[in-house]
Amino acid sequence: MANTFGHLFRTTTWGESHGGGVGVVVDGCPPRLALTETDIQPDLDRRRPGQSRIVSPRKESDTLQILSGTFKGKTLGTPICMWVKNEDARPEAYSEMEKKFRPSHADYTYFAKFGIRAWPGGGRTSARETIGRVAAGAIAKKLLKERCGVEVLAYVKQVQRLVAEVNPDKVRFKDIESNIVRCPDKAAAERMIRLIEKMRREGDTVGGIIEGVARGVPAGWGEPVFDRLEADLGKAMLSLPASKAFEIGSGFGGILMTGRQHNDPFRLRKGKVVTTTNYSGGIQGGISNGQTIFFRVAFKPVATVMHTQDTVDEDFHNTTITGRGRHDPCVLPRAVPMVEAMTALVLVDHALRHKAQCG
Amino acid sequence: MANTFGHLFRTTTWGESHGGGVGVVVDGCPPRLALTETDIQPDLDRRRPGQSRIVSPRKESDTLQILSGTFKGKTLGTPICMWVKNEDARPEAYSEMEKKFRPSHADYTYFAKFGIRAWPGGGRTSARETIGRVAAGAIAKKLLKERCGVEVLAYVKQVQRLVAEVNPDKVRFKDIESNIVRCPDKAAAERMIRLIEKMRREGDTVGGIIEGVARGVPAGWGEPVFDRLEADLGKAMLSLPASKAFEIGSGFGGILMTGRQHNDPFRLRKGKVVTTTNYSGGIQGGISNGQTIFFRVAFKPVATVMHTQDTVDEDFHNTTITGRGRHDPCVLPRAVPMVEAMTALVLVDHALRHKAQCG
Amino acid sequence: MANTFGHLFRTTTWGESHGGGVGVVVDGCPPRLALTETDIQPDLDRRRPGQSRIVSPRKESDTLQILSGTFKGKTLGTPICMWVKNEDARPEAYSEMEKKFRPSHADYTYFAKFGIRAWPGGGRTSARETIGRVAAGAIAKKLLKERCGVEVLAYVKQVQRLVAEVNPDKVRFKDIESNIVRCPDKAAAERMIRLIEKMRREGDTVGGIIEGVARGVPAGWGEPVFDRLEADLGKAMLSLPASKAFEIGSGFGGILMTGRQHNDPFRLRKGKVVTTTNYSGGIQGGISNGQTIFFRVAFKPVATVMHTQDTVDEDFHNTTITGRGRHDPCVLPRAVPMVEAMTALVLVDHALRHKAQCG
Amino acid sequence: MANTFGHLFRTTTWGESHGGGVGVVVDGCPPRLALTETDIQPDLDRRRPGQSRIVSPRKESDTLQILSGTFKGKTLGTPICMWVKNEDARPEAYSEMEKKFRPSHADYTYFAKFGIRAWPGGGRTSARETIGRVAAGAIAKKLLKERCGVEVLAYVKQVQRLVAEVNPDKVRFKDIESNIVRCPDKAAAERMIRLIEKMRREGDTVGGIIEGVARGVPAGWGEPVFDRLEADLGKAMLSLPASKAFEIGSGFGGILMTGRQHNDPFRLRKGKVVTTTNYSGGIQGGISNGQTIFFRVAFKPVATVMHTQDTVDEDFHNTTITGRGRHDPCVLPRAVPMVEAMTALVLVDHALRHKAQCG
Repeated sequence: MANTFGHLFRTTTWGESHGGGVGVVVDGCPPRLALTETDIQPDLDRRRPGQSRIVSPRKESDTLQILSGTFKGKTLGTPICMWVKNEDARPEAYSEMEKKFRPSHADYTYFAKFGIRAWPGGGRTSARETIGRVAAGAIAKKLLKERCGVEVLAYVKQVQRLVAEVNPDKVRFKDIESNIVRCPDKAAAERMIRLIEKMRREGDTVGGIIEGVARGVPAGWGEPVFDRLEADLGKAMLSLPASKAFEIGSGFGGILMTGRQHNDPFRLRKGKVVTTTNYSGGIQGGISNGQTIFFRVAFKPVATVMHTQDTVDEDFHNTTITGRGRHDPCVLPRAVPMVEAMTALVLVDHALRHKAQCG
Repeated sequence: MANTFGHLFRTTTWGESHGGGVGVVVDGCPPRLALTETDIQPDLDRRRPGQSRIVSPRKESDTLQILSGTFKGKTLGTPICMWVKNEDARPEAYSEMEKKFRPSHADYTYFAKFGIRAWPGGGRTSARETIGRVAAGAIAKKLLKERCGVEVLAYVKQVQRLVAEVNPDKVRFKDIESNIVRCPDKAAAERMIRLIEKMRREGDTVGGIIEGVARGVPAGWGEPVFDRLEADLGKAMLSLPASKAFEIGSGFGGILMTGRQHNDPFRLRKGKVVTTTNYSGGIQGGISNGQTIFFRVAFKPVATVMHTQDTVDEDFHNTTITGRGRHDPCVLPRAVPMVEAMTALVLVDHALRHKAQCG
Repeated sequence: MANTFGHLFRTTTWGESHGGGVGVVVDGCPPRLALTETDIQPDLDRRRPGQSRIVSPRKESDTLQILSGTFKGKTLGTPICMWVKNEDARPEAYSEMEKKFRPSHADYTYFAKFGIRAWPGGGRTSARETIGRVAAGAIAKKLLKERCGVEVLAYVKQVQRLVAEVNPDKVRFKDIESNIVRCPDKAAAERMIRLIEKMRREGDTVGGIIEGVARGVPAGWGEPVFDRLEADLGKAMLSLPASKAFEIGSGFGGILMTGRQHNDPFRLRKGKVVTTTNYSGGIQGGISNGQTIFFRVAFKPVATVMHTQDTVDEDFHNTTITGRGRHDPCVLPRAVPMVEAMTALVLVDHALRHKAQCG
Repeated sequence: MANTFGHLFRTTTWGESHGGGVGVVVDGCPPRLALTETDIQPDLDRRRPGQSRIVSPRKESDTLQILSGTFKGKTLGTPICMWVKNEDARPEAYSEMEKKFRPSHADYTYFAKFGIRAWPGGGRTSARETIGRVAAGAIAKKLLKERCGVEVLAYVKQVQRLVAEVNPDKVRFKDIESNIVRCPDKAAAERMIRLIEKMRREGDTVGGIIEGVARGVPAGWGEPVFDRLEADLGKAMLSLPASKAFEIGSGFGGILMTGRQHNDPFRLRKGKVVTTTNYSGGIQGGISNGQTIFFRVAFKPVATVMHTQDTVDEDFHNTTITGRGRHDPCVLPRAVPMVEAMTALVLVDHALRHKAQCG
């Protein structure tokens, strides 16, 4: 479905970097949820460029307007269209992009696919597209919290070689938001910030890992056999710009263990079935088992660097392209709300599907 | 859509481990493709238990029958239903599973979700479900090869700590199939086989990594923004039983590089746009760029071990469960055709979608 | 989705008239519904040729087998695959069809679309395809009855000019089944039977109208704005072979009234909102209002007649074709269970969707 | 999918009568189609209230703005979001609707479903929702015309008992647009206009029939077995506000003929397969046969009348409600572009699906 995500709680994003704006239509949101712009704007502010010295300095307020789907501050059960106007339209800043393909961007592949591309700011390939996701995700997070008691969090787990120590069962939102890199391990956060600042000065970029967490998910969400919860989470994460890898629970590391070591024994605790370890990451056979869901997503270093690189142009000649002006040395701090949003979109959709078939 | 995969080339699997059989309906296959059971059976034989001394010794011939969708050896453009009868029905072999949940299997989560489960052989959660995927994938591979010139391959890249050296651009099918572990690096393969045999003797199990490759994919397949090619590949792989992680191109390793190092420069070569490195793994912005697509999938060690483990039963009491009889020490050799199948299902679907919108 | 119907309760039919058989996969059926073949066979028997002297004399027992999705007589929540083997395979009876297109059949259009067609018995275009629908519909009817208190009925309302008097609010299943034409107005039924027998003797065919009824549907089922309940019912009916028209409530006749006459006034009756007339047919704005849902479907006269007609062949030459042997003088008696089935499939899907979003 | 229509060319409408506006997102539109607001506004003007003395006098300019999906006047292949701001917001004009349900409107059913409703102007149930459809349909019509040579038309065929004589094979757009009722039979048009004016004076309303036509559709569009072309057309039409019935080709009238009379003989004409009659309405077995497609849609008389009617209120008390101010005596002239739009949306979607599977 290309620009639509979800089966019952359906998120359709639209918009290019330069043009009328970017936005989203959410179809399938349950009625009578209290909802105004103030429920959504905080997450957009966490995604916004210019929020700190370690992210893209592009200046946009990213002010959201709800165009439909609510009445007197409550959802109607009808499609919620939300819109953020484009403000910082400076096509001239991108003029070299008009004819040349930026390496490891989507300029060439969009051109190969569509035979046309909106080159200013990258058009549809711009990370501005994620504004719609974050807005939809804010609604999903509110639904999950108020109606299911589920909490969704994400944080920076690693920047290049700098790894944070974080306990997915305990980490709190305020610890994540206590610093500009969104890493709840304060010592690691400081080193990460220094590394990112160094990259910015060098006109280079750096990637890393975000860990996503969902707590309070009851046993039973997820659908065999293709729409497994981890499969949908994986797809959600790998649909984010710059993501290259996904692992849940033990992930790639789990292959170093044997089956006896890796299995999570079941035990009764206060009348509830729990597992004494959680290598499964809260999901077994594609269905939540009641334990904390946690996973990691790798984001490559941002492709825009302030250096000259080899490339080709639209007329298929070899040439070079040089990054100029401002750049985003690390996408991770701004990607944290994106990971939360996509996690929430997956979970709320599965919550509704579970209610439909088994509720 | 739970048991259906794909948007235009739609694969719906059905069936439980014990019962009438397992099968698949493929809807949306183009007409006039030569197709008989002999196009499909070889892949089922690669997936079959009992094929070698390092996989599950369960004895089933897994003989496939095409029930619909072809006429005089050609596809009609109508749904292709394919069926494999269950033969090895020995519910008594599973009697302990009737009441107890096997650790790190899906017994508990299915019970939590549906309030009922077919415990003999794991019912729907059995890897027998993948027969339908492999059968559908065989059709998809044939379409890709004959109509698009695309070749899909997969092989064992790593077993526990044993890593093979393989070049995704060069590896050949016959090298993969030259040994029972399906690893084209012969020296590594021998060590892998010894490790798996040791695990079998110890009643334990071991996991690893399969690498998937698609060569010849033209630039332009894949859909912005949610149905990115890597997102759909990730979902496909994470929907396979026992998979825990997915990475494309540089994957998790790419975060150790900076943007300048990681970007893939474009160059003209014989009039064609190529990249001189391929950290992107053949996909940029969710769309194929014409380079080799390659990715890795981690499979955890199989959960069934020949030992006694803690668990709970359906009446929510603590208890233990003991694996008995035969077990599968390593899923990797049999998972190779599964990875190929899911890769082909993703690619053929995107090929059709691309043709519809941009063809 | 071509061969799939429904969003949450998904019915995928497969199979051709000649070949391995015809069948259906039902995905999304709630778990723990008591279900065996005996719940389904009676509706197949009502659809079966050879059931009376006024329908096609083709001899097939149409015995259904459940291949998956149940365990110990209960649904598992997994896909239910059901299969009816083809028995009456006599391709020689159809040899003239191998090269010639039967007028007002789908032979030509399938050939134009797919470039290939299974000509024996019409292949996929045979009414045998509806076996899968009727089987799925039997499950849907059981769910609606047991879990929602909804009763679905259909009956022959008109054959050519012969119109029956029936009250949709009162009609009973046993009255419908009291005669071979399935018309609860006994006097009309006798005239209808005589007309159909005359047609059979003349080698000609006749069409008519089936009325469908759903009683006990609560207010609130149906989705604005495209998936209106009447839109989905209309699509369901118009997807049946030989159907040409659909009307709900007042239908085409309603245009002879003015708005003042046509509006259905609301009144309170025993604490429940009712309408004192029901020109709306139980649906307003696409959503059920709690009144009886009723609609009519027109079926054209069957295209196979025992006469010589002009046509063209696959080589695009003018020629004639002559019907031989047995024919079906009127599809209506056998179409009654098809209308019930499609009605039930629409309603159960909307019941689940309503529960998901608003339950 | 509730507010989304189509499988490959997907139209999602959003918006309520009062609020930020109404709009639509079109996803899946092929790239490089010339497209600006001037391609769309003319159809919106044909749908607009206040366009003549026989339609609703409500004053809105309905000026459309394209927010995304185009670049330098061409489609990008990305989602096209289009928006019409609400102007005539006078909630006070609707104050009686705040608590009372208008008879034969959707006020009660929306309240029963969602437990909340946007009562000003009917909220989502307002015919303003069709602005999004007409805008999307204008794109679809342009694609069909420029890339497939298909022409889509609709006209008023009947108002109450006044029936027009029109030849679907010959009728021209300019004849349809030559009068305010959009009936190409001038004599009938005059009588229709007089009848509608009489209704307006009496505060009453009248319904009728619109005929839709598609010429130039090649043989082969449409999907067996559920997504038949006539099934999708039927759904499309029955999803329009106030529609109650749909018939294709001979429709309900066809049941008065026998099979011998009703069959359409095939003949070769200038090397092309044609039928000498067209009772099938251009579709056989759900697939276009190359003849003119034509069908009829019945629209009930508009529910809002300038009289006092019985109803109930939100507190479930019997009461009355009185229509005041302006009303729309006949929806037909404004429904003509809606029928065209939905026809085009169905056809373009099937054109893309056909290209994907069989192209």
